Amino acid sequence: METTGKVITCKAAVVWGPGEPFVIEQILVDPPQKMEVRIKILFTSICHTDLGFWKGENEAHRAFPRILGHEAAGIVESVGEGVKDMKEGDNVVPIFNGECGECKFCKNDKTNMCKSFGVNPMKSTMFNDGKCRFSTKEGKPIFHFLNTSTFSEYTVLDSACVVKIDPQAPLHKMSLLSCCLTSGVGAAWNTADVQAGSSVAIFGLGSVGLAVAQGARARGASKIIGVDPNPEKFIKAQMLGVTDYLNPKNLSKPEHEVIREMTGGGVDYSFECVGNLDVLREAFLSTHEGCGYTVILGIYHSPRTLPLHPMELLHGRSIVGSIFGGFKGKTQLPCLAKKCMAGVLNLDEFITHDLPFEKINEAVQLLIDGKSLRCLLHL
Amino acid sequence: METTGKVITCKAAVVWGPGEPFVIEQILVDPPQKMEVRIKILFTSICHTDLGFWKGENEAHRAFPRILGHEAAGIVESVGEGVKDMKEGDNVVPIFNGECGECKFCKNDKTNMCKSFGVNPMKSTMFNDGKCRFSTKEGKPIFHFLNTSTFSEYTVLDSACVVKIDPQAPLHKMSLLSCCLTSGVGAAWNTADVQAGSSVAIFGLGSVGLAVAQGARARGASKIIGVDPNPEKFIKAQMLGVTDYLNPKNLSKPEHEVIREMTGGGVDYSFECVGNLDVLREAFLSTHEGCGYTVILGIYHSPRTLPLHPMELLHGRSIVGSIFGGFKGKTQLPCLAKKCMAGVLNLDEFITHDLPFEKINEAVQLLIDGKSLRCLLHL
Repeated sequence: METTGKVITCKAAVVWGPGEPFVIEQILVDPPQKMEVRIKILFTSICHTDLGFWKGENEAHRAFPRILGHEAAGIVESVGEGVKDMKEGDNVVPIFNGECGECKFCKNDKTNMCKSFGVNPMKSTMFNDGKCRFSTKEGKPIFHFLNTSTFSEYTVLDSACVVKIDPQAPLHKMSLLSCCLTSGVGAAWNTADVQAGSSVAIFGLGSVGLAVAQGARARGASKIIGVDPNPEKFIKAQMLGVTDYLNPKNLSKPEHEVIREMTGGGVDYSFECVGNLDVLREAFLSTHEGCGYTVILGIYHSPRTLPLHPMELLHGRSIVGSIFGGFKGKTQLPCLAKKCMAGVLNLDEFITHDLPFEKINEAVQLLIDGKSLRCLLHL
Repeated sequence: METTGKVITCKAAVVWGPGEPFVIEQILVDPPQKMEVRIKILFTSICHTDLGFWKGENEAHRAFPRILGHEAAGIVESVGEGVKDMKEGDNVVPIFNGECGECKFCKNDKTNMCKSFGVNPMKSTMFNDGKCRFSTKEGKPIFHFLNTSTFSEYTVLDSACVVKIDPQAPLHKMSLLSCCLTSGVGAAWNTADVQAGSSVAIFGLGSVGLAVAQGARARGASKIIGVDPNPEKFIKAQMLGVTDYLNPKNLSKPEHEVIREMTGGGVDYSFECVGNLDVLREAFLSTHEGCGYTVILGIYHSPRTLPLHPMELLHGRSIVGSIFGGFKGKTQLPCLAKKCMAGVLNLDEFITHDLPFEKINEAVQLLIDGKSLRCLLHL
């Protein structure tokens, strides 16, 4: 490709300070270094995690100017030295939770962490040299985000954070594999291992919660209770597998009491997809004694610790965390993509809006207002 | 037997108020009712849980006068109507975590809870009629404790809380199966499922912690780190499988940092056998990222909640509770007894003292002072 080895000038949505509007501007993108890949982003969408970093909710994670974005799909523009598993023109999906394949975690079947390329909210530069591949036209470095930075026409990633996808897969939908679909479906399949005929409660019916519903339905769960204060979400939720809807605003008692009554003692699995500790406690208490299983997928910005007494764990209820659905990205996402293509999972309902990249601020507002699940930005 | 169907007058150690000395006195023990068993206790020992209730640490659990004790072994004196699996003369062990065999929990392989006879610290009377089978000679009811009440020459239990043991098994050692041995070994075998070649950290080297060590050694763990501020405990600990000893008093940094250094990032499994939340946090942080596994076995009297931030669960470390080692008592303890007889587990080292039943207050003091593991009281 004629751009190979050269700096590319392109458009990106840059954030200059906490909560400041995204500014579409021309930036420079360096060529990929050793074991790095430069990709041309075709589609990207916004997740609440982007918003958390955008607002700078956690002071320690602030790094500006920055290019956010971690859900996307695109095409390899060029690869750096040593990259063997991808080449120019391949269809790819970036992953924020990378897989180097070599570290002790990558070699351990029990975890999808990666020593070098796992989720690290503090990281804002490249692994190779601790520098940025983005800069303003004036030469000021622009920080990276969660191994990905997809709100740009071109981005540079470590090859451990790029997954090659079947060229037949519809690329615009594959962007959901970067985060929400994978996190939710994997929480149901890998972390909780939802069994056929079981009961499930999902707290928070955003994209991640609905992906949990998809995963639970695919596994044959017989009761999938969705809990969300926004009744508009139930319409979509029903399409994606939720069988019962609870609006906490309309209940005269705590959700867990209602859920226990509905299920003869509690659900088998509950999923907290909000990032709120009071909701987490409800989710925990909604499962049945003995072996109830609660999975946390939310991001908790509050410094509060778990509102659970240790003796409550002795009643047999467990609580575990799930990152990227427990999937090892490079190894397992191609198979997940195939399952999507085969119709095991319904991706269409997740994309509620389409907008040109330039309208990113509008897309942000749709998400904040709870009006969109995913708004796909076209680059 | 000539006592069958009659009230028995015998000696028991009665506690009349929180922290008051045990009083050996004559009491009356009613015959067993439907599905109950009256047993003659031959050996009993004291556990820290007895001390917690004796001191009345949790106000809600106070019920006096009371007969405490839950670790014991004895012989069936008589059985009530409907008891088919035991008869007069059988060697038995009482269990505080019963197994009715009929409820939804008993029929679920994933839990050892029992709906009717599970651990219930609030319960102080019999299941059948909510009354006591013990009374003073003046007719004042004496409360039961944890389904067992073994500090008495005779006690009445629900048959769900009595396990028949091979008559060849040495009955004095079998009393350890009532609690400490089963809880510790089972935490390693059933709850954590310790694997050969793995690394383990045990916080608290009392009887339960040492039983964890026994369980971990039997599974082939290659490194078993014991943590306890009392260096005298290490001598015994070494005999029972602990390979490395840490005294937190002698460390210049937190235990978890030392353990991570010793193990190249953390142990595979940690066990909190103290009931202290600061220790629990150390135990949690001592495991490695990705899939470290912490089991809580302690009893937490403080109202404090878990000192863990929810995001800490997203690093792949789990924390779970273990009651009675995850064993279903009636189904699985006979097999555990056989393993003890076969020498898979070493019970001898747990019994550090022998005293006549009348010296129960002396035995209590030995435990408080950390001088005994188990003092076996002979009735």
